[in-house]
Amino acid sequence: MKKTILTLAIIFGLTSLLSGQQTIKYSALYYHRASLFEKLPIHKSDIVFLGNSITHYAEWAEIFNDRHVKNRGISGDLVEGVYDRLDPIIKGQPKKIFLLIGVNNLARNHCADSVLMGIEKIAEKIMKESPRTKLYIQSVFPVNSTFTNSPRHANKGPRIIELNNGIKKMCAEKGLTYIDVYPALKSKDSEELDPKFTTDGLHLNGDAYMVWKEILEKYL
Amino acid sequence: MKKTILTLAIIFGLTSLLSGQQTIKYSALYYHRASLFEKLPIHKSDIVFLGNSITHYAEWAEIFNDRHVKNRGISGDLVEGVYDRLDPIIKGQPKKIFLLIGVNNLARNHCADSVLMGIEKIAEKIMKESPRTKLYIQSVFPVNSTFTNSPRHANKGPRIIELNNGIKKMCAEKGLTYIDVYPALKSKDSEELDPKFTTDGLHLNGDAYMVWKEILEKYL
Repeated sequence: MKKTILTLAIIFGLTSLLSGQQTIKYSALYYHRASLFEKLPIHKSDIVFLGNSITHYAEWAEIFNDRHVKNRGISGDLVEGVYDRLDPIIKGQPKKIFLLIGVNNLARNHCADSVLMGIEKIAEKIMKESPRTKLYIQSVFPVNSTFTNSPRHANKGPRIIELNNGIKKMCAEKGLTYIDVYPALKSKDSEELDPKFTTDGLHLNGDAYMVWKEILEKYL
Repeated sequence: MKKTILTLAIIFGLTSLLSGQQTIKYSALYYHRASLFEKLPIHKSDIVFLGNSITHYAEWAEIFNDRHVKNRGISGDLVEGVYDRLDPIIKGQPKKIFLLIGVNNLARNHCADSVLMGIEKIAEKIMKESPRTKLYIQSVFPVNSTFTNSPRHANKGPRIIELNNGIKKMCAEKGLTYIDVYPALKSKDSEELDPKFTTDGLHLNGDAYMVWKEILEKYL
Protein backbone atom coordinates (compact mmCIF):
# COMPACT_ATOMS: atom_id res chain seq x y z
CA MET A 1 0.00 0.00 0.00
CA LYS A 2 2.75 2.44 1.07
CA LYS A 3 4.73 1.55 -2.04
CA THR A 4 1.73 2.24 -4.29
CA ILE A 5 1.17 5.64 -2.72
CA LEU A 6 4.86 6.48 -3.08
CA THR A 7 4.88 5.42 -6.74
CA LEU A 8 1.75 7.47 -7.43
CA ALA A 9 3.27 10.48 -5.67
CA ILE A 10 6.43 10.25 -7.78
CA ILE A 11 4.46 9.89 -11.00
CA PHE A 12 2.26 12.85 -10.06
CA GLY A 13 5.27 14.95 -9.12
CA LEU A 14 7.06 14.16 -12.37
CA THR A 15 3.95 14.84 -14.44
CA SER A 16 3.52 18.25 -12.81
CA LEU A 17 7.17 19.01 -13.34
CA LEU A 18 7.18 17.94 -16.98
CA SER A 19 3.96 19.77 -17.84
CA GLY A 20 5.37 22.94 -16.23
CA GLN A 21 2.16 23.16 -14.23
CA GLN A 22 2.33 25.74 -11.43
CA THR A 23 0.72 24.86 -8.12
CA ILE A 24 -1.84 27.46 -7.11
CA LYS A 25 -0.99 27.84 -3.44
CA TYR A 26 -2.96 30.91 -2.51
CA SER A 27 -6.21 32.76 -3.23
CA ALA A 28 -6.89 34.93 -6.28
CA LEU A 29 -6.83 37.91 -3.91
CA TYR A 30 -3.33 36.94 -2.81
CA TYR A 31 -2.00 37.01 -6.38
CA HIS A 32 -3.87 40.22 -7.21
CA ARG A 33 -2.58 42.10 -4.14
CA ALA A 34 0.94 40.63 -4.34
CA SER A 35 1.24 41.70 -8.00
CA LEU A 36 0.05 45.21 -7.07
CA PHE A 37 2.62 45.38 -4.25
CA GLU A 38 5.34 44.57 -6.77
CA LYS A 39 4.44 47.80 -8.55
CA LEU A 40 4.36 49.98 -5.44
CA PRO A 41 7.91 50.61 -4.22
CA ILE A 42 8.80 50.61 -0.53
CA HIS A 43 11.20 53.33 0.60
CA LYS A 44 13.71 53.66 3.44
CA SER A 45 11.42 56.03 5.34
CA ASP A 46 8.45 53.63 5.17
CA ILE A 47 6.65 51.87 7.99
CA VAL A 48 5.11 48.65 6.72
CA PHE A 49 2.05 46.96 8.20
CA LEU A 50 2.35 43.34 7.14
CA GLY A 51 -0.22 40.61 7.68
CA ASN A 52 -3.66 39.19 6.88
CA SER A 53 -7.20 40.65 6.79
CA ILE A 54 -6.86 42.30 10.19
CA THR A 55 -4.06 44.44 8.75
CA HIS A 56 -5.58 44.63 5.27
CA TYR A 57 -8.97 46.01 6.31
CA ALA A 58 -7.60 49.15 7.99
CA GLU A 59 -6.38 52.40 6.44
CA TRP A 60 -3.07 52.77 8.25
CA ALA A 61 -1.76 55.94 6.63
CA GLU A 62 -4.99 57.64 7.67
CA ILE A 63 -5.06 56.16 11.16
CA PHE A 64 -1.56 57.48 11.89
CA ASN A 65 -1.84 60.51 9.58
CA ASP A 66 1.49 59.52 8.07
CA ARG A 67 1.98 58.94 4.36
CA HIS A 68 5.02 56.75 5.02
CA VAL A 69 2.80 54.09 6.59
CA LYS A 70 2.06 51.38 4.02
CA ASN A 71 -0.58 48.63 4.09
CA ARG A 72 0.80 45.26 3.07
CA GLY A 73 -2.06 43.15 4.39
CA ILE A 74 -3.80 40.47 2.35
CA SER A 75 -7.05 39.02 3.62
CA GLY A 76 -6.70 35.29 4.33
CA ASP A 77 -2.93 35.31 4.27
CA LEU A 78 -0.79 32.66 5.97
CA VAL A 79 2.78 32.64 7.35
CA GLU A 80 3.88 30.98 4.09
CA GLY A 81 2.10 33.66 2.03
CA VAL A 82 3.80 36.50 3.87
CA TYR A 83 7.19 34.82 3.50
CA ASP A 84 6.67 34.36 -0.24
CA ARG A 85 6.00 38.06 -0.80
CA LEU A 86 8.76 39.55 1.33
CA ASP A 87 11.13 40.44 -1.52
CA PRO A 88 9.46 43.66 -2.78
CA ILE A 89 9.25 44.88 0.84
CA ILE A 90 12.81 43.95 1.80
CA LYS A 91 14.13 45.52 -1.40
CA GLY A 92 13.03 48.92 -0.09
CA GLN A 93 14.82 48.42 3.27
CA PRO A 94 11.96 50.03 5.20
CA LYS A 95 12.44 51.81 8.52
CA LYS A 96 9.99 49.58 10.40
CA ILE A 97 7.81 46.53 9.87
CA PHE A 98 4.83 45.67 12.07
CA LEU A 99 4.01 42.00 11.57
CA LEU A 100 0.75 40.31 12.59
CA ILE A 101 0.21 36.85 11.15
CA GLY A 102 -0.80 33.31 12.11
CA VAL A 103 -4.50 33.11 12.87
CA ASN A 104 -5.40 31.73 9.42
CA ASN A 105 -2.84 28.95 9.86
CA LEU A 106 -4.43 28.06 13.21
CA ALA A 107 -7.84 28.07 11.50
CA ARG A 108 -6.44 25.41 9.16
CA ASN A 109 -5.51 23.38 12.22
CA HIS A 110 -1.79 23.97 11.87
CA CYS A 111 -0.29 23.53 15.33
CA ALA A 112 1.12 26.51 17.22
CA ASP A 113 4.71 25.25 16.86
CA SER A 114 4.55 25.08 13.08
CA VAL A 115 3.04 28.57 12.86
CA LEU A 116 5.76 29.86 15.16
CA MET A 117 8.37 28.32 12.86
CA GLY A 118 6.75 30.16 9.97
CA ILE A 119 6.93 33.47 11.84
CA GLU A 120 10.55 32.78 12.75
CA LYS A 121 11.38 32.16 9.10
CA ILE A 122 9.84 35.53 8.16
CA ALA A 123 11.72 37.30 10.97
CA GLU A 124 15.05 35.73 10.02
CA LYS A 125 14.71 36.70 6.37
CA ILE A 126 13.91 40.30 7.28
CA MET A 127 16.77 40.48 9.84
CA LYS A 128 19.24 39.05 7.37
CA GLU A 129 18.24 40.87 4.20
CA SER A 130 17.15 44.19 5.67
CA PRO A 131 19.21 44.55 8.84
CA ARG A 132 18.44 48.25 9.36
CA THR A 133 14.68 47.53 9.53
CA LYS A 134 13.24 47.59 13.03
CA LEU A 135 10.90 44.59 13.21
CA TYR A 136 7.96 44.51 15.61
CA ILE A 137 6.03 41.27 16.03
CA GLN A 138 2.52 41.55 17.38
CA SER A 139 0.60 38.99 19.41
CA VAL A 140 -2.13 37.17 17.52
CA PHE A 141 -5.43 38.74 18.62
CA PRO A 142 -8.15 36.96 20.62
CA VAL A 143 -11.19 35.51 18.81
CA ASN A 144 -14.71 35.03 20.13
CA SER A 145 -16.15 31.53 20.06
CA THR A 146 -19.74 32.70 20.64
CA PHE A 147 -19.92 34.13 17.10
CA THR A 148 -20.80 31.67 14.37
CA ASN A 149 -19.56 33.60 11.31
CA SER A 150 -15.95 32.39 11.47
CA PRO A 151 -16.22 28.91 12.98
CA ARG A 152 -12.77 27.67 11.95
CA HIS A 153 -11.13 30.63 13.66
CA ALA A 154 -13.41 31.24 16.60
CA ASN A 155 -12.55 28.09 18.56
CA LYS A 156 -8.79 28.60 18.35
CA GLY A 157 -8.52 30.62 21.58
CA PRO A 158 -6.23 28.17 23.45
CA ARG A 159 -3.94 27.74 20.45
CA ILE A 160 -3.66 31.51 20.09
CA ILE A 161 -2.45 31.78 23.69
CA GLU A 162 0.05 28.98 23.05
CA LEU A 163 1.29 30.68 19.87
CA ASN A 164 1.63 34.06 21.59
CA ASN A 165 3.74 32.52 24.36
CA GLY A 166 5.99 31.15 21.65
CA ILE A 167 6.19 34.49 19.78
CA LYS A 168 7.06 36.32 23.00
CA LYS A 169 9.85 33.88 23.81
CA MET A 170 11.20 33.99 20.26
CA CYS A 171 11.26 37.81 20.29
CA ALA A 172 13.20 37.80 23.55
CA GLU A 173 15.71 35.34 22.11
CA LYS A 174 16.18 37.30 18.89
CA GLY A 175 16.18 40.78 20.44
CA LEU A 176 12.98 41.74 18.61
CA THR A 177 10.19 43.84 20.07
CA TYR A 178 7.05 41.87 20.93
CA ILE A 179 3.90 43.99 21.05
CA ASP A 180 1.18 42.37 23.09
CA VAL A 181 -2.11 43.80 21.78
CA TYR A 182 -4.10 40.74 22.95
CA PRO A 183 -4.98 41.89 26.51
CA ALA A 184 -6.50 45.17 25.29
CA LEU A 185 -8.88 43.38 22.92
CA LYS A 186 -10.10 40.53 25.11
CA SER A 187 -13.13 40.58 27.40
CA LYS A 188 -12.41 41.56 30.99
CA ASP A 189 -13.61 38.27 32.44
CA SER A 190 -12.59 35.77 29.75
CA GLU A 191 -10.12 35.09 26.95
CA GLU A 192 -12.71 35.87 24.23
CA LEU A 193 -12.35 38.82 21.85
CA ASP A 194 -14.52 41.53 23.46
CA PRO A 195 -17.85 41.45 21.56
CA LYS A 196 -17.90 45.25 21.51
CA PHE A 197 -14.96 45.10 19.06
CA THR A 198 -16.36 42.69 16.44
CA THR A 199 -19.34 41.62 14.36
CA ASP A 200 -17.97 38.18 13.47
CA GLY A 201 -15.72 37.11 16.35
CA LEU A 202 -12.52 37.50 14.33
CA HIS A 203 -12.30 40.86 12.53
CA LEU A 204 -12.24 44.30 14.11
CA ASN A 205 -14.48 47.35 14.03
CA GLY A 206 -13.42 51.00 14.20
CA ASP A 207 -13.34 51.04 18.02
CA ALA A 208 -10.91 48.13 18.08
CA TYR A 209 -8.65 49.79 15.52
CA MET A 210 -8.53 52.90 17.72
CA VAL A 211 -7.50 50.76 20.75
CA TRP A 212 -4.82 49.08 18.66
CA LYS A 213 -3.63 52.48 17.38
CA GLU A 214 -3.11 53.73 20.94
CA ILE A 215 -0.93 50.74 21.73
CA LEU A 216 1.17 51.15 18.59
CA GLU A 217 1.58 54.90 18.76
CA LYS A 218 4.67 54.82 20.97
CA TYR A 219 6.44 52.47 18.54
CA LEU A 220 5.79 54.56 15.45
CA MET B 1 -54.41 34.32 1.66
CA LYS B 2 -53.30 37.92 1.03
CA LYS B 3 -54.87 38.99 4.32
CA THR B 4 -53.03 36.25 6.21
CA ILE B 5 -49.69 37.29 4.71
CA LEU B 6 -50.43 40.93 5.56
CA THR B 7 -51.35 40.05 9.15
CA LEU B 8 -48.22 37.94 9.53
CA ALA B 9 -46.10 40.75 8.09
CA ILE B 10 -47.59 43.26 10.55
CA ILE B 11 -47.05 40.90 13.51
CA PHE B 12 -43.48 40.22 12.40
CA GLY B 13 -42.81 43.92 11.91
CA LEU B 14 -44.23 44.81 15.32
CA THR B 15 -42.30 42.01 17.03
CA SER B 16 -39.03 43.21 15.47
CA LEU B 17 -39.83 46.78 16.46
CA LEU B 18 -40.74 45.89 20.03
CA SER B 19 -37.73 43.63 20.55
CA GLY B 20 -35.48 46.41 19.20
CA GLN B 21 -34.04 43.86 16.79
CA GLN B 22 -31.93 45.45 14.06
CA THR B 23 -32.02 43.98 10.57
CA ILE B 24 -28.55 42.88 9.51
CA LYS B 25 -28.45 44.11 5.93
CA TYR B 26 -24.78 43.82 5.13
CA SER B 27 -21.68 41.71 5.81
CA ALA B 28 -19.58 41.85 8.99
CA LEU B 29 -16.87 43.43 6.88
CA TYR B 30 -19.27 46.20 5.86
CA TYR B 31 -19.98 47.12 9.49
CA HIS B 32 -16.32 46.86 10.47
CA ARG B 33 -15.11 49.09 7.64
CA ALA B 34 -18.03 51.54 7.89
CA SER B 35 -17.39 52.00 11.62
CA LEU B 36 -13.70 52.61 10.92
CA PHE B 37 -14.58 55.19 8.25
CA GLU B 38 -16.68 57.05 10.82
CA LYS B 39 -13.48 57.57 12.81
CA LEU B 40 -11.36 58.74 9.88
CA PRO B 41 -12.38 62.27 8.87
CA ILE B 42 -12.61 63.34 5.25
CA HIS B 43 -11.24 66.81 4.46
CA LYS B 44 -11.98 69.40 1.77
CA SER B 45 -8.73 68.59 -0.03
CA ASP B 46 -9.50 64.86 -0.19
CA ILE B 47 -10.10 62.70 -3.24
CA VAL B 48 -12.29 59.75 -2.30
CA PHE B 49 -12.32 56.38 -4.05
CA LEU B 50 -15.72 54.93 -3.26
CA GLY B 51 -16.94 51.44 -4.13
CA ASN B 52 -16.66 47.68 -3.62
CA SER B 53 -13.74 45.21 -3.58
CA ILE B 54 -12.28 46.52 -6.82
CA THR B 55 -11.73 49.87 -5.09
CA HIS B 56 -11.01 48.33 -1.68
CA TYR B 57 -8.19 46.04 -2.77
CA ALA B 58 -5.96 48.80 -4.14
CA GLU B 59 -3.70 51.25 -2.28
CA TRP B 60 -4.82 54.49 -3.88
CA ALA B 61 -2.69 56.97 -1.96
CA GLU B 62 0.37 54.96 -3.02
CA ILE B 63 -0.77 54.50 -6.62
CA PHE B 64 -1.16 58.28 -7.06
CA ASN B 65 1.55 59.21 -4.54
CA ASP B 66 -0.93 61.61 -2.95
CA ARG B 67 -1.87 61.46 0.72
CA HIS B 68 -5.17 63.22 0.04
CA VAL B 69 -6.42 60.17 -1.85
CA LYS B 70 -8.61 58.07 0.46
CA ASN B 71 -9.83 54.50 0.04
CA ARG B 72 -13.50 54.11 0.86
CA GLY B 73 -14.01 50.72 -0.76
CA ILE B 74 -15.67 47.78 0.98
CA SER B 75 -15.41 44.34 -0.55
CA GLY B 76 -18.85 43.00 -1.52
CA ASP B 77 -20.57 46.37 -1.30
CA LEU B 78 -23.81 47.20 -3.10
CA VAL B 79 -25.40 50.45 -4.30
CA GLU B 80 -27.52 50.44 -1.13
CA GLY B 81 -24.46 49.91 1.05
CA VAL B 82 -22.60 52.84 -0.49
CA TYR B 83 -25.67 55.06 -0.08
CA ASP B 84 -26.02 54.11 3.59
CA ARG B 85 -22.45 55.13 4.40
CA LEU B 86 -22.30 58.44 2.52
CA ASP B 87 -22.74 60.72 5.55
CA PRO B 88 -19.18 60.59 6.97
CA ILE B 89 -17.83 61.26 3.46
CA ILE B 90 -20.24 64.06 2.60
CA LYS B 91 -19.61 65.70 5.98
CA GLY B 92 -16.03 66.38 4.89
CA GLN B 93 -17.13 67.99 1.59
CA PRO B 94 -14.29 66.34 -0.34
CA LYS B 95 -12.78 67.84 -3.48
CA LYS B 96 -13.52 64.80 -5.64
CA ILE B 97 -15.26 61.43 -5.47
CA PHE B 98 -14.56 58.58 -7.87
CA LEU B 99 -17.47 56.14 -7.70
CA LEU B 100 -17.41 52.56 -9.00
CA ILE B 101 -20.30 50.40 -7.88
CA GLY B 102 -22.94 47.98 -9.16
CA VAL B 103 -21.39 44.64 -10.10
CA ASN B 104 -22.36 42.95 -6.82
CA ASN B 105 -25.98 44.01 -7.35
CA LEU B 106 -25.87 42.46 -10.83
CA ALA B 107 -24.39 39.29 -9.29
CA ARG B 108 -27.51 39.13 -7.11
CA ASN B 109 -29.59 39.28 -10.27
CA HIS B 110 -30.78 42.83 -9.69
CA CYS B 111 -31.70 44.24 -13.10
CA ALA B 112 -29.61 46.99 -14.68
CA ASP B 113 -32.40 49.57 -14.26
CA SER B 114 -32.64 49.07 -10.52
CA VAL B 115 -28.87 49.28 -10.09
CA LEU B 116 -28.86 52.47 -12.15
CA MET B 117 -31.53 53.91 -9.86
CA GLY B 118 -29.30 53.08 -6.90
CA ILE B 119 -26.35 54.88 -8.50
CA GLU B 120 -28.59 57.85 -9.30
CA LYS B 121 -29.70 58.02 -5.67
CA ILE B 122 -26.04 58.11 -4.54
CA ALA B 123 -25.19 60.80 -7.10
CA GLU B 124 -28.17 62.97 -6.13
CA LYS B 125 -27.32 62.83 -2.42
CA ILE B 126 -23.72 63.83 -3.09
CA MET B 127 -24.74 66.63 -5.50
CA LYS B 128 -27.28 68.00 -3.03
CA GLU B 129 -25.35 67.68 0.22
CA SER B 130 -21.82 68.32 -1.03
CA PRO B 131 -22.32 70.58 -4.06
CA ARG B 132 -18.64 71.59 -4.32
CA THR B 133 -17.56 67.95 -4.72
CA LYS B 134 -16.66 66.98 -8.27
CA LEU B 135 -18.25 63.56 -8.80
CA TYR B 136 -16.86 61.10 -11.33
CA ILE B 137 -18.81 57.96 -12.10
CA GLN B 138 -16.90 55.08 -13.60
CA SER B 139 -18.19 52.37 -15.90
CA VAL B 140 -18.65 48.96 -14.31
CA PHE B 141 -15.68 46.84 -15.43
CA PRO B 142 -15.92 43.79 -17.69
CA VAL B 143 -15.91 40.28 -16.16
CA ASN B 144 -14.65 37.05 -17.67
CA SER B 145 -17.10 34.17 -17.95
CA THR B 146 -14.40 31.57 -18.62
CA PHE B 147 -13.22 31.76 -14.99
CA THR B 148 -15.13 29.66 -12.51
CA ASN B 149 -14.14 31.38 -9.25
CA SER B 150 -16.86 34.05 -9.32
CA PRO B 151 -19.75 32.34 -11.13
CA ARG B 152 -22.47 34.78 -10.03
CA HIS B 153 -20.51 37.70 -11.40
CA ALA B 154 -18.80 36.19 -14.40
CA ASN B 155 -21.89 35.67 -16.54
CA LYS B 156 -23.18 39.22 -16.13
CA GLY B 157 -21.36 40.65 -19.15
CA PRO B 158 -24.46 41.71 -21.11
CA ARG B 159 -26.04 43.32 -18.03
CA ILE B 160 -22.83 45.26 -17.37
CA ILE B 161 -23.00 46.72 -20.89
CA GLU B 162 -26.66 47.61 -20.34
CA LEU B 163 -25.86 49.24 -16.99
CA ASN B 164 -22.94 51.22 -18.42
CA ASN B 165 -25.13 52.61 -21.19
CA GLY B 166 -27.51 53.76 -18.49
CA ILE B 167 -24.73 55.31 -16.36
CA LYS B 168 -23.36 57.16 -19.37
CA LYS B 169 -26.76 58.60 -20.23
CA MET B 170 -27.44 59.57 -16.63
CA CYS B 171 -24.09 61.35 -16.36
CA ALA B 172 -24.82 63.35 -19.52
CA GLU B 173 -28.24 64.35 -18.16
CA LYS B 174 -26.87 65.39 -14.77
CA GLY B 175 -23.71 67.10 -16.04
CA LEU B 176 -21.47 64.54 -14.31
CA THR B 177 -18.25 63.14 -15.73
CA TYR B 178 -18.52 59.52 -16.88
CA ILE B 179 -15.19 57.69 -16.98
CA ASP B 180 -15.27 54.70 -19.30
CA VAL B 181 -12.57 52.34 -18.02
CA TYR B 182 -14.32 49.27 -19.51
CA PRO B 183 -12.71 49.29 -23.01
CA ALA B 184 -9.17 49.34 -21.62
CA LEU B 185 -9.78 46.23 -19.50
CA LYS B 186 -11.64 44.04 -21.97
CA SER B 187 -10.10 41.55 -24.39
CA LYS B 188 -9.41 42.91 -27.86
CA ASP B 189 -11.70 40.47 -29.61
CA SER B 190 -14.52 40.03 -27.08
CA GLU B 191 -16.38 41.69 -24.24
CA GLU B 192 -14.63 39.54 -21.60
CA LEU B 193 -12.28 41.00 -18.98
CA ASP B 194 -8.81 40.43 -20.46
CA PRO B 195 -7.44 37.29 -18.74
CA LYS B 196 -4.05 38.97 -18.40
CA PHE B 197 -5.65 41.30 -15.83
CA THR B 198 -7.27 38.76 -13.48
CA THR B 199 -6.96 35.47 -11.63
CA ASP B 200 -10.68 35.06 -10.94
CA GLY B 201 -12.54 36.79 -13.80
CA LEU B 202 -13.74 39.65 -11.60
CA HIS B 203 -10.95 41.23 -9.53
CA LEU B 204 -7.84 42.98 -10.84
CA ASN B 205 -4.11 42.37 -10.62
CA GLY B 206 -1.37 44.98 -10.44
CA ASP B 207 -1.17 45.37 -14.24
CA ALA B 208 -4.87 46.20 -14.41
CA TYR B 209 -4.55 48.77 -11.62
CA MET B 210 -1.76 50.45 -13.58
CA VAL B 211 -3.96 50.64 -16.70
CA TRP B 212 -6.79 52.08 -14.61
CA LYS B 213 -4.38 54.58 -13.01
CA GLU B 214 -3.34 55.89 -16.43
CA ILE B 215 -6.97 56.53 -17.37
CA LEU B 216 -7.72 58.33 -14.10
CA GLU B 217 -4.56 60.43 -13.96
CA LYS B 218 -5.96 63.30 -16.01
CA TYR B 219 -8.96 63.61 -13.69
CA LEU B 220 -6.95 63.72 -10.48
